[in-house]
Amino acid sequence: MYNEKMIKLGEERSVIRELFEYGNARKKIVGVENVFDFSIGNPAVPPPACVREEIRRLADSDHGYSSAPGLFQVREAISGYIETAFGAQMRPDLIYMTCGASASLTVVLNGIVNRGDEIVVLAPFFPEYRVFTEHAGGTLVVAPTDENFHLDAEKLRPYLNKRTKAVILNSPNNPSGAVYSEGEIEALAALLHEKSAEREEPILLLADEPYRELSYDKKVPHVMNFYEHSLVLYSFSKALSLAGERIGYIAVSPKCHRAEELFSAICGAGRALGFVCAPVLFQRAVANCLGQVSDIGEYRRRRDLLYQSLTRMGYSCVKPEGAFYLFVRSPEPDANNFCERAKKYELLLVPSDSFGVKGYVRISYCVDMGVIERSLPAFEKLIGEYR
Amino acid sequence: MYNEKMIKLGEERSVIRELFEYGNARKKIVGVENVFDFSIGNPAVPPPACVREEIRRLADSDHGYSSAPGLFQVREAISGYIETAFGAQMRPDLIYMTCGASASLTVVLNGIVNRGDEIVVLAPFFPEYRVFTEHAGGTLVVAPTDENFHLDAEKLRPYLNKRTKAVILNSPNNPSGAVYSEGEIEALAALLHEKSAEREEPILLLADEPYRELSYDKKVPHVMNFYEHSLVLYSFSKALSLAGERIGYIAVSPKCHRAEELFSAICGAGRALGFVCAPVLFQRAVANCLGQVSDIGEYRRRRDLLYQSLTRMGYSCVKPEGAFYLFVRSPEPDANNFCERAKKYELLLVPSDSFGVKGYVRISYCVDMGVIERSLPAFEKLIGEYR
Repeated sequence: MYNEKMIKLGEERSVIRELFEYGNARKKIVGVENVFDFSIGNPAVPPPACVREEIRRLADSDHGYSSAPGLFQVREAISGYIETAFGAQMRPDLIYMTCGASASLTVVLNGIVNRGDEIVVLAPFFPEYRVFTEHAGGTLVVAPTDENFHLDAEKLRPYLNKRTKAVILNSPNNPSGAVYSEGEIEALAALLHEKSAEREEPILLLADEPYRELSYDKKVPHVMNFYEHSLVLYSFSKALSLAGERIGYIAVSPKCHRAEELFSAICGAGRALGFVCAPVLFQRAVANCLGQVSDIGEYRRRRDLLYQSLTRMGYSCVKPEGAFYLFVRSPEPDANNFCERAKKYELLLVPSDSFGVKGYVRISYCVDMGVIERSLPAFEKLIGEYR
Repeated sequence: MYNEKMIKLGEERSVIRELFEYGNARKKIVGVENVFDFSIGNPAVPPPACVREEIRRLADSDHGYSSAPGLFQVREAISGYIETAFGAQMRPDLIYMTCGASASLTVVLNGIVNRGDEIVVLAPFFPEYRVFTEHAGGTLVVAPTDENFHLDAEKLRPYLNKRTKAVILNSPNNPSGAVYSEGEIEALAALLHEKSAEREEPILLLADEPYRELSYDKKVPHVMNFYEHSLVLYSFSKALSLAGERIGYIAVSPKCHRAEELFSAICGAGRALGFVCAPVLFQRAVANCLGQVSDIGEYRRRRDLLYQSLTRMGYSCVKPEGAFYLFVRSPEPDANNFCERAKKYELLLVPSDSFGVKGYVRISYCVDMGVIERSLPAFEKLIGEYR
């Protein structure tokens, strides 16, 4: 009767969602303060003051439709910001305002994919990349990274071929926290140029950057300065703690192959998917808060406490350079077993299987400091089982 | 290189959009007050005070993700409102919050359509129904209405067959302004029951109701009280003048065939299309303003002035019972010619072809009263050409 694929996608309670609901049930039994839920990725700090002031100021503004790609003055402001902050060439007519990062992804993928095209992602990766790519008619191809989850062009090379439409780059990475360096992106660009030269049309680079501002140790290089056929898929969800308000953008590099045609395809996909326009109050609000960021120091303090504590206990983990996740090696080969064992201590961790690698767990540290502090004895007991 | 279908959808500057931009260009030449742009459908009255107060109040609220179908307390409030205001049976777990009416449509259509399924619409109809249906893999079937654009079950009958997945009902109708009566919906329900009995699975009824509150002469019957396999696809865009903020919902009747499975398909489609959740600030705001409406009297005054003036001049038009459009018969067979001629008088009207009928024009009267008043001499001169 209904669409079987959609029923399955809807019923498929993701591991993360299931854990979250398990945690809520446990909280009712053992008390809120005794459950350590590291499963979710909802921003833990409030939006900066300017955002809250803008919302109040815009209460009486015009709430009518904007044009489909967004209010022109907002697109101008973002284009100018990209030029000033990153030194990348940009044009307002190549900015398309979206309902957040997932919308940026589905709109671009539906705009560029012809049936059978391959979209390459680097493991570990955000699991919805698979859902979005397949619904757009594409095939997801998972390429490995190096032992620290960093970009290794030579490892990526065998996964690029004549069917490759685009490579998705997610830096800072969910779930590994890796931030790719300029050198890594230079090597990637060289590889993409080399592979593109073997075809009629270049391979696109899609930089999915919801965590751009959550980089603790170094700046995130702007892909447009390294590779001309680049799009940035941005969301204000994390930078401004507005995850539920659905506001982001797609920026097409003016140097991109047939940039205007690509932009038309993006407009067409936004229309066919039913987006109409991005929420106008938040279009205006973010345009007036460009460059502002929620208190990132809060995330850094959580990262430092959790990383130092866990590695001291004997857990093995690459220090995350950004985002708000710790990607910890499971002390036993099956991460699912390890996560089940963690539940005995009311620790809710997400096994890495759905992220495209096995044997790890993702710990989302966008939680109150108190949760981290109270959870440490539980982590200690858990690792004790493996000593 | 990119998806040809999407490029075409993106490049296809809709007649309405083109007129709107033509109007802006003319305004620069002949002055803002001398161009009479009746092309667009953006609400012309501000949101009610409660909405603006809610926005201010919610500036400091939690802006994190809600669950995909929406905040449970919001879904409870809407479910309760449907029960109280319309006497229809409803359940909060069958309410899915969306980013507005277009999103409600694409999410439902992607959830229910299997390739080749037919979606039946009544002419005249909102042109995006075709885009949404075809992108979901369905085929749009256009059925006629009676001479006043009202529902005629016997005219609809030959268009329903074993491939019919759903009928879309849009009342008050864009562009005709028709509001279907209880008797019409009873006759429709009887036909759907009869046709459904010939098959294994029933035909669904999708009530697309962004204009529900813009009904000037009678109440809009609630389809769930007439036909069990009904979904209401609602948007607050018009009732609360929030068109740009993208907030609405899908309500699945609890009596609907396999309602829970249908709801899962809706959740799956929302996920695959990249919606994540509806904007949370506006979820909360609308839940606290249920039953409130912008000043509808403003639209009624515009309808009355324009309808009375144009019919007095000799234009032929069925009096619209709702929405904010006048659907006027073109005094010459080709409505496109008529619209071109209207431009001489700086009157911007939309020809009816894309709405699925020929020989009419749509006049959107959600404009300032002054525009209508100043436009009347131009309408007079225009009809004079045909005397």
